[in-house]
Amino acid sequence: MKWTELPEQPCLIARSVAILGDRWTMLVLRDAFAGLRRFDQFQESLGISRTIVADRLNLLVEEGVLEKRPYQQHPPRYEYRLTSKGLDLYPILLAIFDWGRRYYPIEAGLPIIHTHKNCGHDFAPVTTCSHCGDPVTAHDVTARRGPGLYS
Amino acid sequence: MKWTELPEQPCLIARSVAILGDRWTMLVLRDAFAGLRRFDQFQESLGISRTIVADRLNLLVEEGVLEKRPYQQHPPRYEYRLTSKGLDLYPILLAIFDWGRRYYPIEAGLPIIHTHKNCGHDFAPVTTCSHCGDPVTAHDVTARRGPGLYS
Repeated sequence: MKWTELPEQPCLIARSVAILGDRWTMLVLRDAFAGLRRFDQFQESLGISRTIVADRLNLLVEEGVLEKRPYQQHPPRYEYRLTSKGLDLYPILLAIFDWGRRYYPIEAGLPIIHTHKNCGHDFAPVTTCSHCGDPVTAHDVTARRGPGLYS
Repeated sequence: MKWTELPEQPCLIARSVAILGDRWTMLVLRDAFAGLRRFDQFQESLGISRTIVADRLNLLVEEGVLEKRPYQQHPPRYEYRLTSKGLDLYPILLAIFDWGRRYYPIEAGLPIIHTHKNCGHDFAPVTTCSHCGDPVTAHDVTARRGPGLYS
């Protein structure tokens, strides 16, 4: 979906899910964070048609989430790397992983274990308030219209 | 997409995005967090066909993210409320909003302003480490295979 096809409503979630609201796009991003870079790696990981892989990679490049770089000249070959805009999607991926961990547990344990390099411990993500630093859940938040919303 | 159609790979992100990797589903969730409960409210907000709205609401009920409750007997009418599993999606929605805020800013300002009730301040979400409490970015994390991943 193009952003311009969305309802005429200045919504940051709608703008973002115009890109992210697609399961293959999310799995491409998962794989990019796991270190995959080349078209064939993505295609093999996802096990889907080259057309779908190419479509999602192109969208992510167009949106500045991935950067397409040549890694070989003859014949020309490209790889796809997360940009800083792409790397900033990490909290979203972590939050999705953590929700899956809670509600779709795998009997044998976690499939992937995340370690926080700075403190050296395995961790789960905790969403906190930028002001006071305390954890934030849906129950702790009120929302009001801001100046960017049509009145 | 049904979970069973996914690649034979125990991935919590794939499991979760089988539900969440759909833009209309995400916008239904956005609206549910904004307090909408009735079919017609969702339909009016999204401006899409009743079939798509019904399909997404049914999926979310089936997955235990929304609960369908009668609010009127004659004629029977239902409303859709977030369950605790649904409320636990809030960090994902907040993270998506925050990414949109950074990369697709609206000139007039934020369309929605979130206040942390506990401290009384407007805030942005910060993803932190459950062990040390420090902020976590993509650069701060290493991931390794856990027991739940096929070797």
